[in-house]
Amino acid sequence: MELRRWPRKNDPDSIRARQEALAPRLDDNGEVFAHDLAPFASATEAITGVALVPVAVVGPIDIELGDYALEEPEGRLVERGRMNEGVFVPLANTEGGLSVSLYRGARAVGESGGFRTHVVRDRITRASAFLFADAAQALAFSRWIEGQLEEMKAWLASEPVANLSTHAKLRELETHVVGPMCHVMYAYTTGDACGMNMITRNSYALNQGFVLDRTPVKPARAMLEGNMGGDKKVSARYFERGGHGKTVIAEATLTEEAVRRVLKTSLDDLAELAFVGTHGAVASGMQSVAFTPATAIAAMFTATGQDIGMVGTSSMAHGTAHLVEGGLHVSMRLASLEVATVGGGTTLPYARSWLRLLGCAGPGKVYRLAQIVAAATLSLEISASAAMATAGSENFYRAHFERGGLR
Amino acid sequence: MELRRWPRKNDPDSIRARQEALAPRLDDNGEVFAHDLAPFASATEAITGVALVPVAVVGPIDIELGDYALEEPEGRLVERGRMNEGVFVPLANTEGGLSVSLYRGARAVGESGGFRTHVVRDRITRASAFLFADAAQALAFSRWIEGQLEEMKAWLASEPVANLSTHAKLRELETHVVGPMCHVMYAYTTGDACGMNMITRNSYALNQGFVLDRTPVKPARAMLEGNMGGDKKVSARYFERGGHGKTVIAEATLTEEAVRRVLKTSLDDLAELAFVGTHGAVASGMQSVAFTPATAIAAMFTATGQDIGMVGTSSMAHGTAHLVEGGLHVSMRLASLEVATVGGGTTLPYARSWLRLLGCAGPGKVYRLAQIVAAATLSLEISASAAMATAGSENFYRAHFERGGLR
Amino acid sequence: MELRRWPRKNDPDSIRARQEALAPRLDDNGEVFAHDLAPFASATEAITGVALVPVAVVGPIDIELGDYALEEPEGRLVERGRMNEGVFVPLANTEGGLSVSLYRGARAVGESGGFRTHVVRDRITRASAFLFADAAQALAFSRWIEGQLEEMKAWLASEPVANLSTHAKLRELETHVVGPMCHVMYAYTTGDACGMNMITRNSYALNQGFVLDRTPVKPARAMLEGNMGGDKKVSARYFERGGHGKTVIAEATLTEEAVRRVLKTSLDDLAELAFVGTHGAVASGMQSVAFTPATAIAAMFTATGQDIGMVGTSSMAHGTAHLVEGGLHVSMRLASLEVATVGGGTTLPYARSWLRLLGCAGPGKVYRLAQIVAAATLSLEISASAAMATAGSENFYRAHFERGGLR
Amino acid sequence: MELRRWPRKNDPDSIRARQEALAPRLDDNGEVFAHDLAPFASATEAITGVALVPVAVVGPIDIELGDYALEEPEGRLVERGRMNEGVFVPLANTEGGLSVSLYRGARAVGESGGFRTHVVRDRITRASAFLFADAAQALAFSRWIEGQLEEMKAWLASEPVANLSTHAKLRELETHVVGPMCHVMYAYTTGDACGMNMITRNSYALNQGFVLDRTPVKPARAMLEGNMGGDKKVSARYFERGGHGKTVIAEATLTEEAVRRVLKTSLDDLAELAFVGTHGAVASGMQSVAFTPATAIAAMFTATGQDIGMVGTSSMAHGTAHLVEGGLHVSMRLASLEVATVGGGTTLPYARSWLRLLGCAGPGKVYRLAQIVAAATLSLEISASAAMATAGSENFYRAHFERGGLR
Repeated sequence: MELRRWPRKNDPDSIRARQEALAPRLDDNGEVFAHDLAPFASATEAITGVALVPVAVVGPIDIELGDYALEEPEGRLVERGRMNEGVFVPLANTEGGLSVSLYRGARAVGESGGFRTHVVRDRITRASAFLFADAAQALAFSRWIEGQLEEMKAWLASEPVANLSTHAKLRELETHVVGPMCHVMYAYTTGDACGMNMITRNSYALNQGFVLDRTPVKPARAMLEGNMGGDKKVSARYFERGGHGKTVIAEATLTEEAVRRVLKTSLDDLAELAFVGTHGAVASGMQSVAFTPATAIAAMFTATGQDIGMVGTSSMAHGTAHLVEGGLHVSMRLASLEVATVGGGTTLPYARSWLRLLGCAGPGKVYRLAQIVAAATLSLEISASAAMATAGSENFYRAHFERGGLR
Repeated sequence: MELRRWPRKNDPDSIRARQEALAPRLDDNGEVFAHDLAPFASATEAITGVALVPVAVVGPIDIELGDYALEEPEGRLVERGRMNEGVFVPLANTEGGLSVSLYRGARAVGESGGFRTHVVRDRITRASAFLFADAAQALAFSRWIEGQLEEMKAWLASEPVANLSTHAKLRELETHVVGPMCHVMYAYTTGDACGMNMITRNSYALNQGFVLDRTPVKPARAMLEGNMGGDKKVSARYFERGGHGKTVIAEATLTEEAVRRVLKTSLDDLAELAFVGTHGAVASGMQSVAFTPATAIAAMFTATGQDIGMVGTSSMAHGTAHLVEGGLHVSMRLASLEVATVGGGTTLPYARSWLRLLGCAGPGKVYRLAQIVAAATLSLEISASAAMATAGSENFYRAHFERGGLR
Repeated sequence: MELRRWPRKNDPDSIRARQEALAPRLDDNGEVFAHDLAPFASATEAITGVALVPVAVVGPIDIELGDYALEEPEGRLVERGRMNEGVFVPLANTEGGLSVSLYRGARAVGESGGFRTHVVRDRITRASAFLFADAAQALAFSRWIEGQLEEMKAWLASEPVANLSTHAKLRELETHVVGPMCHVMYAYTTGDACGMNMITRNSYALNQGFVLDRTPVKPARAMLEGNMGGDKKVSARYFERGGHGKTVIAEATLTEEAVRRVLKTSLDDLAELAFVGTHGAVASGMQSVAFTPATAIAAMFTATGQDIGMVGTSSMAHGTAHLVEGGLHVSMRLASLEVATVGGGTTLPYARSWLRLLGCAGPGKVYRLAQIVAAATLSLEISASAAMATAGSENFYRAHFERGGLR
Repeated sequence: MELRRWPRKNDPDSIRARQEALAPRLDDNGEVFAHDLAPFASATEAITGVALVPVAVVGPIDIELGDYALEEPEGRLVERGRMNEGVFVPLANTEGGLSVSLYRGARAVGESGGFRTHVVRDRITRASAFLFADAAQALAFSRWIEGQLEEMKAWLASEPVANLSTHAKLRELETHVVGPMCHVMYAYTTGDACGMNMITRNSYALNQGFVLDRTPVKPARAMLEGNMGGDKKVSARYFERGGHGKTVIAEATLTEEAVRRVLKTSLDDLAELAFVGTHGAVASGMQSVAFTPATAIAAMFTATGQDIGMVGTSSMAHGTAHLVEGGLHVSMRLASLEVATVGGGTTLPYARSWLRLLGCAGPGKVYRLAQIVAAATLSLEISASAAMATAGSENFYRAHFERGGLR
């Protein structure tokens, strides 16, 4: 084990050196080292083997999808049309019951007329922080920088530094002064990429090449991120407003017939569960109202090469259930769904294939993907709720108890 | 595509039927269907293919680990000893820079004397809810059920129903009455499993076989979960107290020398970043104080077969940094780290191998795994912080900008 | 204005000196100086004048009150009986519409059978903090101090220091370790007093005379309060569990007839408003579900000499509305209602009189007062909700628009 | 007690009738009925007596105040100058130690160069809610209404309805769609009034006269407030952004000498307490970082006729402490300080006098008042912190233990 320092490169020799050093600790048949790592060589450093997760596929999920585009120059989302589709969804998971439960929810909605999905907002934020001697300076800086947005856009467009991303477009900036700090929230759009690297590059360039150069008040320190940016930790700010990915709403109106036949429960049962679950969420200080959004999101993220570290933030969910004429209206708002169809893990084998299954590989597909994830999430939520809503939650129990899954 | 209804079985014919139905939509070389799915047949329904994620390995991470056991009959954690180890960690990820950054943090700590880790609590909760006509009834029920703990334990131990889990041991119960609802938080330990299925089975049995049978006040409805249980949604309750997995603390005291040499920054820079980041977290209503805990947790969860839907809740993190004699004390508290070394995805190929690398495969290893995950999480946090703490966060930027990763 | 240093004493000469120094700035008829301050001389330092607030009285509010006592030695609340009463409530306020609106809500409930109120918990917490070199030490301390509860109780009972409060009884202690800190939540009961001074004295004595003397691990610093105690800032901890005052629930089931006749709206209107208001609360990150609990609480606190600085924490409210057979069940849970009938401002003229009106002056009355405040709060909540629930909220508007109040 | 229905009028006969009906319950010397109620007759209904609270005055507090005005047409705050002043503050309270402690903090700051205060934002929000059949409709409505701001301003300016407030100027509107609801946050400025009644009137008029008339999508229900407006309940939204009153920052840099001499502690002690208190706040899920902001705010609100029901929301506080060259920089950000110098309780006797003492009676004074409240709040925070920061918090203890106050 004397490899100090541990090699980080992904050339065949380095990979083999790592594998040989670790083999004695693995004491197995070497399955994790048996795959060709070449296609992944540029994905991350120190690659040594693979993880393999089984993928269930269920469908079709009937969705009326919106077709969205960003309207320039402001980057406002515009809906250009709507279309109906039946989508098959890949669910990388090892949880017995997950895929059939999600499918059951989708069927109940399908028999009720299908899902309708909407993209409400698209922004991704990097929040730099500037530390001053006092709040007076931080406020003066704040007033100055809030007036620089158009200048900043022009500066970035002039490509003043090599390797800036032109996909990442600065749209708004907002400041927050507390104590001697001024946090600056740069909100971007990043096309079909998730875009954290892009906006990191551009924000760093802005801070170093524009802000520090021009500010009338010099900060003692400039930090690329001061923890108001919403990256990988849930927060009230991004739960309410979105701004770290796509804000998406999926909805459906369940009919009594579908609920009874497919979900084996009743509209009243579901409405009562929603009442109890909403107040249970509030009582425990949940930053969501939902039962199990992360389950579906994790399964789709893992299959399609999304950033798994964003499962928590992408799962900030606000669900509702409301008795209406003709059934129970149910919906799920995902405030900050961080999905991509280009860049990062989405470009790799396997992920790319599953994105193709969804009709979501490559540019121009990210709003479609966001909507499908939201509909799948609501599918599972409906089914899990139905299982819990039956007398004594018998069905939820059976799902965990009697199925043949792993225990 | 006329497969209605979509088959859920995992026999070879059903698998093939699904693959053939979907192949036209994939339009690729069929890589996702090329693996033998038999070993995964009992993992979940409707298995159709695989996802494959590259795994980086870095190490050794120097950790002084505690050796813990549950003391019966109360299930209190007892530390039986401490030992030093160098651990190699598998990181399933596609994020350029992640593995080298984590390793850099680990080296800085290694040169500063290593990590020390502690397991503080171990509980997993299912919160059933009982709906009554009014609060008076809910309160009467609450007073009754709070006196039933010992009876319940005895009842479960008598194995009154087939297929109850004997690994899931009920430890405490707590109630919360709001409006006409009484939420009942059943807190269990579940050995080395994560245990959600176990505690679902046992809680359902308790509700149906014990509670509804004996309660002096009959509820209108009994629901297996009323959303106070902390499953897959972050909440203030479980951030503060733990109770949905292991509460773990990792800590280290960074020396000035190690910070300068390995992290290319200074103790003051790190302390100032911690000041700004803590207040940024508060300002944005984050339910954590940390920069990027989910990144390391996601990578280790994916490699080792943990429940990816629990990445968000497991990442509820409370980090601190404090200048002390001899350096900067840094720590990370993970309130509800939901890890397992038996059951669920951990029993499957690949996951099992990576657990072996960690010395964490099988029974008796779960506290070890929890501690390693915490140390790895703090490693990455230190390194990411160091990158952001340098003048203008130049190093953080470089990590995203200049490396050869995917964009 | 050359009074440096400003005198703090309350003897007649000092009072007059302050009044004379300030009179030129007031430039009025001297009304604020016209009252005899002698009865208030021991209330606080530097007394110079008075504030006078008009008090409305409305009633009767029909309440079925519980009769509660603490069961020794554990301090558990026991309900000894229930009785019906019509209570007149004093509301110190200058908000047009407040008193009539509250009265209207009470009448609607009166016609529906009256309120029922319940006291669920009674504790008041001081959270000291001990700072160590690292988390290992903080955890060792935590394990030690958690075993000292009975010793501590005995020590306090032995009156080891002069002037300890014997009314403040230590009931439980709980620890929370994060980083190098161990927070220690001392939970007391304090009889009919609010008790912050008592528990401050006793906790200080515990820290100095017991903890620092006996702890096997010496802290670098001991702080009487480390901000986990819930004093005067709302927090998720005390919203959920109570522990800073009385946890009280008020409830009623509104009949359709009463809602229509008195509240000029319908059960459905109220239920729909509750749906919207609950989700609005969640969306904005409110640490309550309610419309206007603080209004009633502030008015009763000001009249009865409670600590006005506790209006915010006492107003942490979790309201529910649920359609049931026979009407709409409504309830309000006040998690941490900080009321007293002895000590502090309650001993002073005016406050004492208004407490008498409530039948709440002096010892043995604090649970009664807590319940009346909760019922009054729910009265106003019902009426304000009804005003907002009518078509376009016309009645709510009229209440603000057409009445003769101040604008 | 046969007064059903209880009279609400404030004519002498009605007042006397109430007093006579209640006198037997009071059983005292009648002090609460002894005051002339005529000056308060228009303040609220059913006036029956008074509450009287002693008022301490301390000062001078040395403050460098900003001079602010709203810049039309957008209502942005502009700073026109800064001036130094010594202010005496009235503190209506019955808490022994409060006034001397606040004064001690002010003296320490005075010896360190004084406070500096800043007003950052001024808005007050009424959040109406519109309920639709589904989210699609709510979103269509949302897109429509977001485009109506300028039209709405013009409509309000045309005085289409009698009795609209011209002081309340609509500035922005923002929507939030969740489920079938569209919440509409109308943000106003209201001159020197708090303005809740004004904005209620104007928002109701907007909803009834503009929105319902013109909207292309008809809502099933329109509610004047749907609980996203931040009125009287603390929330993450208004803690972060302000928008329910004035966002104010007070700051000072304490010198070592002043801390030692006046506060009897050290810069390090204060910095360590801030570290512990900040993390304690996070651990307990506080929606603030501060020790005791509500105490000072409650005392000033009660003296100056502010809305006591707003003590909780006005006390949402974000404090910082940061070691800098020359001392410890301390600051307090009050996100939503709801103060007025005209309207409501501020117009009444006593309140008006205390506002005069502050130089804050009448129009054009509200930003001054907001800044003085913030400085007073930070004064008390500094002193309370100093008491807790000394070894074992001895001074904090003494303040509660040895003083001659009420217990």
